[in-house]
Amino acid sequence: MGKLYVIGIGPGGLDHITLKAAKAIEESDIVVGYTKYLEMIKPLIENKEVYSTGMRGEEKRCEEALRLSVDKTVALVSTGDSGIYGMAGLILEMKKDENVEIIPGITASSAAGAVVGAPLMHDNCNISLSDLMTPYEEIKKRVSLAAEGDFVISLYNPKSKGRPGYLRECINLIKEHRGNNTPIAVVRNALRDDQSYALCTLENFNDEIVDMFSIVIIGNSKSYIKNGVFITPRGYKLNREEA
Amino acid sequence: MGKLYVIGIGPGGLDHITLKAAKAIEESDIVVGYTKYLEMIKPLIENKEVYSTGMRGEEKRCEEALRLSVDKTVALVSTGDSGIYGMAGLILEMKKDENVEIIPGITASSAAGAVVGAPLMHDNCNISLSDLMTPYEEIKKRVSLAAEGDFVISLYNPKSKGRPGYLRECINLIKEHRGNNTPIAVVRNALRDDQSYALCTLENFNDEIVDMFSIVIIGNSKSYIKNGVFITPRGYKLNREEA
Repeated sequence: MGKLYVIGIGPGGLDHITLKAAKAIEESDIVVGYTKYLEMIKPLIENKEVYSTGMRGEEKRCEEALRLSVDKTVALVSTGDSGIYGMAGLILEMKKDENVEIIPGITASSAAGAVVGAPLMHDNCNISLSDLMTPYEEIKKRVSLAAEGDFVISLYNPKSKGRPGYLRECINLIKEHRGNNTPIAVVRNALRDDQSYALCTLENFNDEIVDMFSIVIIGNSKSYIKNGVFITPRGYKLNREEA
Repeated sequence: MGKLYVIGIGPGGLDHITLKAAKAIEESDIVVGYTKYLEMIKPLIENKEVYSTGMRGEEKRCEEALRLSVDKTVALVSTGDSGIYGMAGLILEMKKDENVEIIPGITASSAAGAVVGAPLMHDNCNISLSDLMTPYEEIKKRVSLAAEGDFVISLYNPKSKGRPGYLRECINLIKEHRGNNTPIAVVRNALRDDQSYALCTLENFNDEIVDMFSIVIIGNSKSYIKNGVFITPRGYKLNREEA
């Protein structure tokens, strides 16, 4: 019997992939994934059968991965954490009796956070601004409630051509609950070769530097920037002392 | 000049540590961390100088790590993601001109999610129920707003002897906004050797199985359990198509 590994490789490249994910890819007869992501892990998949498709081929790719896994070991690869806006959900929705294992990876907000300091040190949330499968009204409501709850907020898919104004509108919703000096980080291609980032505040935020390869992190009411580093004061102690 | 790596090793053990984290530990002259966590990565730290302390020695450990890093390469190790309820925040708060690099890891909610399926596929938040450094009233407010916003909710530090009733109270707050059939996962020691988990619903949740080594994940209004697997329907597609 075959096996399907659903693998998140983290931000991209080989540095931040887990040993388990790398091992599962090595074990696999076939590697399935988006062309661009497979290039990021080239050294791991040389001499392997590869099934890759363009950006919009996700469902087809999942079907193919499930079909192949009936009698082969297959690695279905995506960036970030396969379980957070990744491919794990669709595979498990489509799965019948195939043998599937989900292997987690570093999600984009963790990667972006590490680039700028420690913005996610206390209660935090991930929100996608894409409205392809969530009504925009719901997204705005979620952003407002997260701001009211003083969560550190990581925005995925903060911007695309189809909705240029959403990010600015959502930042304005957050302003209703949080001070002008609240730090904001815009991290582009976090922990990839062409990484870049900018730090600003709610007051002087400019959404023109944000694109679809960016993650936007808005601090909570206690977050601050010190020597160019984004810090949210520790809730760490309570945690380490207990877990 | 020395260097301090602040490293999250993920859930524990060697499987889910990143290549970068493992490499940084190998590079280091000295490894600093809580005794129990260092045991989890024993093969990586053999023949290395080790500075380990008991559970409540975090600040002392951070001071020592910073002091040592002035002229040596030091790895400060904790489980999960060093930037999410981890040690990165305190180090950056205490840091003067030491050379510090934050290396992210798989946080506990990602690990727990992968164990039970794909519960975190859409907008999600992490909340710690520990009130050591956050007033309980604030925690409850945050839980209510997250429930109202239909976030998938991951509860860190869900229970400890000092606050046996908090989890039950917070689950009841969530009930005010979410249906009785909403799935809940209780995952203990996610992706560690002695891992165990239970799936239930808001209606039949029993907090007696929860302890301080558990993560509790409450689904959103669209989450469901299928053949013993916890699934939150994809927001994945919108994401993959854009980022």
